Amino acid sequence: MKKQFNLRIAIVGATGLVGRTFLKILSENKLPISKLDIFATQRSAGTKLFFKNKEIEVIDIAKINFNNYDVAFFSAGKEASLNLVPIALKNGTLVIDNGSYWRLHSSVPLVVPEVNFQDALKHNGLIANPNCSTIQLVVALKPILDKFGLKKVEVSTYQAISGAGQKGIQKLLSEIESGKVVDLLSKHPIAFNINFHKIQNKFDYSEEEYKIINETRKILNEKRLKITATCVRIPVLVGHCESVSIITKKDFTLEEIVETLSQNPAIKLYDDPEHEIYPTPKVVEGTDFVFIGRIRRNPIEKNGLHLWIVADNVRKGAASNAIQILEKLWNEAPELIYKFPKMKI
Amino acid sequence: MKKQFNLRIAIVGATGLVGRTFLKILSENKLPISKLDIFATQRSAGTKLFFKNKEIEVIDIAKINFNNYDVAFFSAGKEASLNLVPIALKNGTLVIDNGSYWRLHSSVPLVVPEVNFQDALKHNGLIANPNCSTIQLVVALKPILDKFGLKKVEVSTYQAISGAGQKGIQKLLSEIESGKVVDLLSKHPIAFNINFHKIQNKFDYSEEEYKIINETRKILNEKRLKITATCVRIPVLVGHCESVSIITKKDFTLEEIVETLSQNPAIKLYDDPEHEIYPTPKVVEGTDFVFIGRIRRNPIEKNGLHLWIVADNVRKGAASNAIQILEKLWNEAPELIYKFPKMKI
Repeated sequence: MKKQFNLRIAIVGATGLVGRTFLKILSENKLPISKLDIFATQRSAGTKLFFKNKEIEVIDIAKINFNNYDVAFFSAGKEASLNLVPIALKNGTLVIDNGSYWRLHSSVPLVVPEVNFQDALKHNGLIANPNCSTIQLVVALKPILDKFGLKKVEVSTYQAISGAGQKGIQKLLSEIESGKVVDLLSKHPIAFNINFHKIQNKFDYSEEEYKIINETRKILNEKRLKITATCVRIPVLVGHCESVSIITKKDFTLEEIVETLSQNPAIKLYDDPEHEIYPTPKVVEGTDFVFIGRIRRNPIEKNGLHLWIVADNVRKGAASNAIQILEKLWNEAPELIYKFPKMKI
Repeated sequence: MKKQFNLRIAIVGATGLVGRTFLKILSENKLPISKLDIFATQRSAGTKLFFKNKEIEVIDIAKINFNNYDVAFFSAGKEASLNLVPIALKNGTLVIDNGSYWRLHSSVPLVVPEVNFQDALKHNGLIANPNCSTIQLVVALKPILDKFGLKKVEVSTYQAISGAGQKGIQKLLSEIESGKVVDLLSKHPIAFNINFHKIQNKFDYSEEEYKIINETRKILNEKRLKITATCVRIPVLVGHCESVSIITKKDFTLEEIVETLSQNPAIKLYDDPEHEIYPTPKVVEGTDFVFIGRIRRNPIEKNGLHLWIVADNVRKGAASNAIQILEKLWNEAPELIYKFPKMKI
């Protein structure tokens, strides 16, 4: 299969922040791409973007013919996921969707390659890419779950505004430059300030907090995992940080935790704080690793552990993870890119 | 006593960020100040600052004669606290010290007026002002402790860089303007990034984290309170935020929590998140209240509660709290400003 075929790829939602990052990462990587087309709404059609140093033109999404593509990366918002994914599936195109719409659907695997790649092997045409803040968390939790078990997880996030796409970056930079509040995403300024994600009701969790809770349970296949989250946006462009408090089932030493985390090649330990070595957004920007530091005991809990987890939310938290799913499929089960049972929607 | 005397006040460390804020707040408030002199190191002597619209000159700290002052506010670093506080005490001057050096000393009350003012009444010439991140936390915890008991407290902070004084502000603003890293406080940039406070050893807590743990226990008079902290600086100028997870001893309803917190006039509830009403650094800047929002159950714990606590770290977290200590003494026990047992150092 691998020898016979190359990959014909569509990027749906190519002009957004994640879409552009798809293009950048696919330019650099070694997948045997025989065709790559990029799509966006009519408004963006005609825009030129670079792929492997060649200009290519954004095509109106209304003109897409999924028959021409083996794989489509989606990052075009809820409407596109809702309306176009079923058409892609009917045409036998494998969809890797960065949106949140299908993530919790029981027929859709939600995949981080280093954590639950086996779920991708059971796909029915659609694989969901998890939320940025979830991806880095589960990469850190999985080795600990396997070795020590997870009793409880509590997360407070420090999220980059690029999590809200180019609008978020525009809001932060314009506010810094103009000194005025830009009423995008939130009525509150984000420059020199914090924002919360959308919250539906008083006393409730935000949408982002629910994503961490529900997606982590699904990816780790721990449906009753005790996990809670507080999600906060801070005036950082790229790189999500998480202050994480874990209670394991079995006892551990910190040396064992270090050893366990070190064995995962997706993880980089940056934990020499007396020499100011710890992960920050600037440290992780542009990389595909999950960085962990501030490894400490939480002395108020039996088997209590604190971790500081940081990753590039646009890359590992979105585009890189989606492409890594395809790479791993290509390397380990290429036939599943071309032939699979189709889910019914 | 109140009728006979006015207050002769010295500010030791007047040119720093907290020192200047002392001056500003004392300008606006109603204490009967008959004399106010401001001191700093020789380097700053001669600098002119405003007090009640009049220029006053910074005096070389080497020239201070504590006999001339009833009260001295200290915010001049560890050396000044160590060397000059004993001299002030010998001269019978009441010292309210914003530094950390004396805070945990058994003869020194560590006071937040709305929380443990009774401790100030037992002072021996020196009252310590707690750390900024501690003050806002204990204001929120105290009513909950009194009504429901505290079993465990876990804090992740989002701290403004002004916690590091003018150097911190300079670092952030210069980095934003120049796009280059300013090697002050930390080798890491703070613009579009995070920093940790000083950390002594691998696997250890930072100095700031120990302050929250130890000072909270002392102020609440709960020496074995189970409390842990992760302290982080974010690119915000003024206003510390805290993501706090509490387990109470007794059961509660969220309505009871709201009612309990509302009764404290130092607290403002900003908790209507579906209308984007929640505390942010920009909301609290320039105020003396402790703002609380995101009041939610933590569903993974019996009696689990999440709070988001925000205050102006330079005002309520430092200068205002120190001045409020003096105000409350003036109103409730003015004799203790002038006559007290002197601690032996």
